[in-house]
Amino acid sequence: MEDNFTLKHQLQHRSIRSFSTQKVTKQQLQTLYEVARQTATSMFNQQFSIIRVTDIEKRNKIRTICQQDYVGKNGELLIFVVDLYRNYQIRQQQGNDAGRLHTTDVFMQGVCDTLLAAQNVTNAAESMGLGCVYLGSIQNDAAQMLEVLKLPKLTYPLLGMQVGYPAQHPQLKPRLPLEFTCFENEYQAEQNIQALADYDAKVNTYYDLRDTNQRIDTFTNQINSAKLDMKYTKRDEMLEILHRQELCWK
Amino acid sequence: MEDNFTLKHQLQHRSIRSFSTQKVTKQQLQTLYEVARQTATSMFNQQFSIIRVTDIEKRNKIRTICQQDYVGKNGELLIFVVDLYRNYQIRQQQGNDAGRLHTTDVFMQGVCDTLLAAQNVTNAAESMGLGCVYLGSIQNDAAQMLEVLKLPKLTYPLLGMQVGYPAQHPQLKPRLPLEFTCFENEYQAEQNIQALADYDAKVNTYYDLRDTNQRIDTFTNQINSAKLDMKYTKRDEMLEILHRQELCWK
Repeated sequence: MEDNFTLKHQLQHRSIRSFSTQKVTKQQLQTLYEVARQTATSMFNQQFSIIRVTDIEKRNKIRTICQQDYVGKNGELLIFVVDLYRNYQIRQQQGNDAGRLHTTDVFMQGVCDTLLAAQNVTNAAESMGLGCVYLGSIQNDAAQMLEVLKLPKLTYPLLGMQVGYPAQHPQLKPRLPLEFTCFENEYQAEQNIQALADYDAKVNTYYDLRDTNQRIDTFTNQINSAKLDMKYTKRDEMLEILHRQELCWK
Repeated sequence: MEDNFTLKHQLQHRSIRSFSTQKVTKQQLQTLYEVARQTATSMFNQQFSIIRVTDIEKRNKIRTICQQDYVGKNGELLIFVVDLYRNYQIRQQQGNDAGRLHTTDVFMQGVCDTLLAAQNVTNAAESMGLGCVYLGSIQNDAAQMLEVLKLPKLTYPLLGMQVGYPAQHPQLKPRLPLEFTCFENEYQAEQNIQALADYDAKVNTYYDLRDTNQRIDTFTNQINSAKLDMKYTKRDEMLEILHRQELCWK
């Protein structure tokens, strides 16, 4: 396997959910922004924004939305926003209509910009000795997130990130074997999940041996659990909220 | 500004669209896969796959879809696929229905997995001295991409990537100033695009001085151009195709 400073961090990636009181410096934050800025962008449209949340009340509100105790405590809290509104303004102020900004196509281009920037920031942060956790849980109440961050139409808060100095050293979580995820020339649709037995055993060992929240669990068991069972939650308003934001109209 | 090996590459990122004949080694490819594998994954659902396209005929077909001359020539061609089908199989083979896999919420979780992995691979590749370009242009005909890669329902080919040894050294493309993209506590909706004049001048200088395809152009001009004007293209079938793939049903 190839080896260098960047790869070492990438191959040792774990989500950090507990941060020390040591603060991310202004200089570090600036570097994270510069890295986000230099990320590849679809068709040079530059359709994302980052909102840093420092206001205690807003951080508390976001913790309530995320339903995760560590959210908004130690560490910087960044929200990565799909942002087509900036380009809307540019068009509007120069006398044009919104054009293709209402299409799913352009929204997904913004989604690409946003998520590529987020991972670039994670890699930058980890290279500086910081740890990160993504907060997909802001989707628990996207409507509320829009309000908290005063987001206008043609924007969508896609992913949160908390970043800071790690106060924990979690075990590496075992991932699916590559033969289940990487293919050549075409997708392999016929897979017997019996072949996942070894992997399930590894996941079970991970849960059994980890320091916190030990339990008996496997990957296939999780996929068959309530987390993917049909039920109505606020997360199912996503498409509706996107439409209300004037996104993904066709 | 902070400085290290990873950041140096990130802050110098440019898309590479011309690759030498020197091949990416098996070991390098394996490393890229391992990095993708270790990327953060939403709710531990691991909902992406990578398809490496080596077949000449398929590479030619993808070049035709992308309408870009360099696609499928030198370099590895990787397609990053949102993959909810694997978990569907796991549920089905253990006697469960598709559950939440048809929701926009879970699709967007898969989108997150897929794009975070793609950027992680880019960072890994660049750390090894390779160059990359994203191919959003596979969306020019997503239906055809599904066929070429034999993708089943509950999958979607989201982003392509070509990676190899650079045969060009393009200039760094100037990005929007941070005051337009990074905010604190709330979105700044009131922005006067007159303030983008300096940035427009920078973009214009970039186009004027670069080695290939010189032209007079600015950022705001591009945003007001045909690229975002309303017109019907195959890209506007995206939501329809997603629905046909049994994705984003609600």
